[in-house]
Amino acid sequence: MAKDQKKQPRPKADTPKGFRDYFGADVTERKQMLDRIAEIYHRHGFDPLETSAVETVEALGKFLPDVDRPNAGVFAWQEAEVPGGGAGDWLALRYDLTAPLARVAAQFRNDLPSPYRRYAMGPVWRNEKPGPGRFRQFYQCDADTVGSASVAADAEICAMLADALEHAGIRRGDYLIRINNRKVLNGIIEAMGAAAGLADDILRSIDKFDKVGEEGVRQLLTSGRKDESGAFIEGVGLAPEQAAPVLAFLTSKGADNAGTLANLRAAVGGSASGAEGVEELAQISDMLAAMGVGEDRAIIDPSIVRGLGYYTGPVFEAELTFEILDDKGRRRQFGSVAGGGRYDGLVERFTGQKVPATGVSIGVDRLLAALRARGLAGTDAQGPVVVTVMDRDRMADYQAMGAELRAAGIRAEVYLGNPKNFGNQLKYADKRQSPVAIIQGGDEAARGVVQVKDLILGARIAAGASHEEWKAQPAQTEVPRADLVAEVRRILE
Amino acid sequence: MAKDQKKQPRPKADTPKGFRDYFGADVTERKQMLDRIAEIYHRHGFDPLETSAVETVEALGKFLPDVDRPNAGVFAWQEAEVPGGGAGDWLALRYDLTAPLARVAAQFRNDLPSPYRRYAMGPVWRNEKPGPGRFRQFYQCDADTVGSASVAADAEICAMLADALEHAGIRRGDYLIRINNRKVLNGIIEAMGAAAGLADDILRSIDKFDKVGEEGVRQLLTSGRKDESGAFIEGVGLAPEQAAPVLAFLTSKGADNAGTLANLRAAVGGSASGAEGVEELAQISDMLAAMGVGEDRAIIDPSIVRGLGYYTGPVFEAELTFEILDDKGRRRQFGSVAGGGRYDGLVERFTGQKVPATGVSIGVDRLLAALRARGLAGTDAQGPVVVTVMDRDRMADYQAMGAELRAAGIRAEVYLGNPKNFGNQLKYADKRQSPVAIIQGGDEAARGVVQVKDLILGARIAAGASHEEWKAQPAQTEVPRADLVAEVRRILE
Repeated sequence: MAKDQKKQPRPKADTPKGFRDYFGADVTERKQMLDRIAEIYHRHGFDPLETSAVETVEALGKFLPDVDRPNAGVFAWQEAEVPGGGAGDWLALRYDLTAPLARVAAQFRNDLPSPYRRYAMGPVWRNEKPGPGRFRQFYQCDADTVGSASVAADAEICAMLADALEHAGIRRGDYLIRINNRKVLNGIIEAMGAAAGLADDILRSIDKFDKVGEEGVRQLLTSGRKDESGAFIEGVGLAPEQAAPVLAFLTSKGADNAGTLANLRAAVGGSASGAEGVEELAQISDMLAAMGVGEDRAIIDPSIVRGLGYYTGPVFEAELTFEILDDKGRRRQFGSVAGGGRYDGLVERFTGQKVPATGVSIGVDRLLAALRARGLAGTDAQGPVVVTVMDRDRMADYQAMGAELRAAGIRAEVYLGNPKNFGNQLKYADKRQSPVAIIQGGDEAARGVVQVKDLILGARIAAGASHEEWKAQPAQTEVPRADLVAEVRRILE
Repeated sequence: MAKDQKKQPRPKADTPKGFRDYFGADVTERKQMLDRIAEIYHRHGFDPLETSAVETVEALGKFLPDVDRPNAGVFAWQEAEVPGGGAGDWLALRYDLTAPLARVAAQFRNDLPSPYRRYAMGPVWRNEKPGPGRFRQFYQCDADTVGSASVAADAEICAMLADALEHAGIRRGDYLIRINNRKVLNGIIEAMGAAAGLADDILRSIDKFDKVGEEGVRQLLTSGRKDESGAFIEGVGLAPEQAAPVLAFLTSKGADNAGTLANLRAAVGGSASGAEGVEELAQISDMLAAMGVGEDRAIIDPSIVRGLGYYTGPVFEAELTFEILDDKGRRRQFGSVAGGGRYDGLVERFTGQKVPATGVSIGVDRLLAALRARGLAGTDAQGPVVVTVMDRDRMADYQAMGAELRAAGIRAEVYLGNPKNFGNQLKYADKRQSPVAIIQGGDEAARGVVQVKDLILGARIAAGASHEEWKAQPAQTEVPRADLVAEVRRILE
């Protein structure tokens, strides 16, 4: 038996491919950001909902809604056979927070308030090929209103998103929420008489406006376009006169919302759906103003499309407008950190009845990266005060020091490794980013004193100090044992 | 195509068996409790660690460590084949937070500080038969110190657990941490010369001390015992003189730690391992006293065993000592809410080297239930102020009211359902546990006033009011529009 065990190779200590661990500040910075966002959601009357990670494949639907990634999948498995029963259910890890919301809205439709405002924050899983910076488990942070057909719900989500970004730490002026309406675009496509099947292709072409500009989109909508690398991208095949209203729509952004709305009214021509969409945008614009959200924070922008096929009305996207350096050291805009819109079909899968819904999802990792890039992630990364151990028979004394410091609200710990090598203890304190080390040998204990070593000052001196300065050790002070807490507090302040 | 879709039955809107959703206060109360616990862990120098939900089966080990539930399993699935590669890895959802910690401690052993203090909070999954109140996803909340062989680490965990329980809201006197040491028991078993394979059976018998008392354990250790229902439970088969030292150990709890330690020293007789175990308990007792944790909070108790086979030294358990009513209305002690101990073998699986570790796991759901039973879960369950909609063309006005209230820090929302039936709006406010409703019809708008309805007072009046009192409606006040925030604040205070 013992021999058999010896033969077995040791298990590999690795995360599965595409998964990672989060240590220390990785966890606390994200938590602080999400807590700030939750405060705003809560104040807007949204209630938290936490569904389980596991859903039936039946409830979840097998495929991701994102049409641009048809290969994206879920992690799924089949339950063991039910005794006397037959095959077990297929279960899967949720791939987003919207599909579980749809299931909850259907399952608890008689119990939940209607409309139901909820927020959800938590991990989701995608069974995709992992890549650099692309993980198979990541956080989402969503807020949705289920059961309201009113654009007031969309306007509220946009206003709340602006508040949430600011409360998380993004300064006003550093973000802009752009709002569009699928109905306007659908009206234009309807009015121009294009084949119904082309709508998705047209959306995809418009989505490239940011990158290829008006002329590029015109080519993509008609006969095709050669990109920078020389590769030819086939066009949608519209006639130039069909492409014209789409381009008019795309470029109808005016100097302000009033101007944009006037341009849009002209661009939609006689389409009833288009006119309705413009009217909704006008209402959203008025409501945002009423809620004190100016056009410096949220604005109508007809070039915003959003990839997902299931949006049916207003769509919105929050962009960070400051520049950062990309991987190659080039300056570029930070870009999108949140997006959402109105979707009316998700609950219908379960109940057969249309349930209007609208919501937003914040890209947790991207927003956190933005806060870090601006130095605003705001965690207190300071390590604990480390009480070193000079005399292993006096552990209780050292623990009393740690307890006293903690009772005074100071983060503190006793060194718990092998105390033989004192250098290791200081290396440990360094690794812990400890601001202060406490030292008390037998001599100091007999004299009723402790040494308090300011490690931050010490590191600064060590970096640029002469041998004489180093020997003078001004970063270490001897104080009476009774003054331990006061002295540490003095250094930390 | 459309026809095919029609034929498909609608998916069932259900959570998978054994899973559940958490709404509103379910989420916030747990979060508040965990945040309070995390504050204490952080102050003790513990760093957060968040591993992913998914591990390789190889790293996780296939089986739960709990020997009492050998059928307990994990949710596992096999990755798709690697192209040109062969079979994919088997992945699984973590079943606790200790196995991932062991993997992390091995994987990052060159980067982590040593000793490594970490805490972790999050869901774990068990592929078990669900039962009433027993779910297949639940929270754990762990703190462990990896890489310290010193009992100072165990003492620190016990002191921290006491602080954490108090900071979460459990009053001093309402909990007790009981501490024992496996080495003492192992020493006794060793000294009595029982077959090595009997150790687990002896542990199991001792674990019943709470329920069956000294005489019951004596029977279980020797020839067997008839329980209340008349069923016979087979005994371990020890001779009475072999059972005697085990019983002496079990009943060696004295009036205080000093008394218990004296009794234990007598009970272990000549066993070296037993003597070492008693000495460790004496040190833990001294250290707890040094950290200001008195015997009213943590105490040596030889009757604590803890089921898990992997504990190798000190073990501890936190019990809540107040009584609650059980399902059948009988008074009983609340019981255990946390437990842990020293385990030295977990990291060894990966590296071949023993890494001493000790830690505690708080039963999140049980502690939360205890706080709720004591009315200490401490969430602010108050719903939002609801701004009702009398005139759907003036949504922007209502939204301005909501925004004003929120800007003043008051949780507030506008009714977003169909406003036609005003009764539905008040029913909605009721479902939202709203403290205040705001009403402004066209008439009030023209006069520049709003109606502010105190729903809590209103409900109190409605419950015991005569028709006259009801008509007088003292719970509703008309105030100038400009005084909206002040009036709502007055009611909420």
